[in-house]
Amino acid sequence: MQVMKDKKCIVLLSGGLDSTTTLYYAVKNGYKPICLIFDYGQRHKKEINSAIKIANLLGLKYFVVKISLPWKGSSLLDKKMRIPRYVRKRQIPSTYVPARNIIFLSIATSLAEVYKVQYIFYGANQVDFSGYPDCRKEFIKSFEKMINKGTKVGVKGGKVTVVAPLINMTKSEIVKLAVKLGVPLEYTWSCYRGGRKPCGICPTCKLRYKGFKEAGINDPLLV
Amino acid sequence: MQVMKDKKCIVLLSGGLDSTTTLYYAVKNGYKPICLIFDYGQRHKKEINSAIKIANLLGLKYFVVKISLPWKGSSLLDKKMRIPRYVRKRQIPSTYVPARNIIFLSIATSLAEVYKVQYIFYGANQVDFSGYPDCRKEFIKSFEKMINKGTKVGVKGGKVTVVAPLINMTKSEIVKLAVKLGVPLEYTWSCYRGGRKPCGICPTCKLRYKGFKEAGINDPLLV
Repeated sequence: MQVMKDKKCIVLLSGGLDSTTTLYYAVKNGYKPICLIFDYGQRHKKEINSAIKIANLLGLKYFVVKISLPWKGSSLLDKKMRIPRYVRKRQIPSTYVPARNIIFLSIATSLAEVYKVQYIFYGANQVDFSGYPDCRKEFIKSFEKMINKGTKVGVKGGKVTVVAPLINMTKSEIVKLAVKLGVPLEYTWSCYRGGRKPCGICPTCKLRYKGFKEAGINDPLLV
Repeated sequence: MQVMKDKKCIVLLSGGLDSTTTLYYAVKNGYKPICLIFDYGQRHKKEINSAIKIANLLGLKYFVVKISLPWKGSSLLDKKMRIPRYVRKRQIPSTYVPARNIIFLSIATSLAEVYKVQYIFYGANQVDFSGYPDCRKEFIKSFEKMINKGTKVGVKGGKVTVVAPLINMTKSEIVKLAVKLGVPLEYTWSCYRGGRKPCGICPTCKLRYKGFKEAGINDPLLV
């Protein structure tokens, strides 16, 4: 990766494996990240605490943005809905939160304008879990075009760039990269449920399990 | 305007002249709007109350979404900054809130997905106050493209459409349209300050004054 002159960046940090690996990747490449964490009414607060712990571990500035959406429409928000055990290929699961990542990236764009930051790091991945439309490269390109037309920085000749270093990696490649970068895997939280231990049966637990297994690495959360 | 089969819509409602006229325009054209109101830390709450009053007057469903942005960067958010008295041509004023309308439209997109609504009405206007990059037609087209790539409804062959009926109108044309549609002008609030009466000196007060004057109509707020 080319090292840039202006090394400030924003990292969308959920405290999960992908976003934490993205954060460590940015640090490794000489960026000085501001972590952006969202409290948007998710089912459990455990991931917010994980994200804060990780930002503190690296001594990084972070912001927690609170959004109160008065509607649900996703099993990640609505405790009355069941989190699915299986997701069929080409199906968009009920854990999809309508337009969530678009909202997150828009808020990151606001922060980027205020703090004069060009780069937004986004841990999206289109390989192993392509059910989410907002995790595809095609969407990211389109989002970049839109913000550069709709912001002051864009029309004044500046630029906001969304960097998604994991976009084409498999989950096992992400696990290997995380280990190489020294990500504190024991601090990350991927499970859609917020118990003491990962539930092991939700789609993201299964995907994480598969990734660690294929990488030949033990998940410290399961020890 | 062509009358559509699915007549539900979402209207971004700030309680100002433009968004209220947009709301009445939607109703006049047979739409059943859900009003979307934002409490995002603006300088005063008066516009939120105006918006709620207008939604109630029409007996419409509304949502107030609260967003806590832990940064400022705009004289509309930061009481320590001065609201400008003049805005030069081609200048983006300090009242520009970084990426605000992108965030609002993204949240409207989430509501559109959850409530299965195709149309988002947006009172943007590029003629009289083109300092804001997110009030231009070019931005709106680009935003539509992005959401139709990044949402479930978009990739499943549906569509979210942003309708901006005032986009090419002058302020005096908007005032005339408002009168024709029966907009309760005395309920609308445009002033960037939140006093008992409009301040008369902020850019939006001046623009409103000019619009009413050119339309030959008395502004009930100034009586």
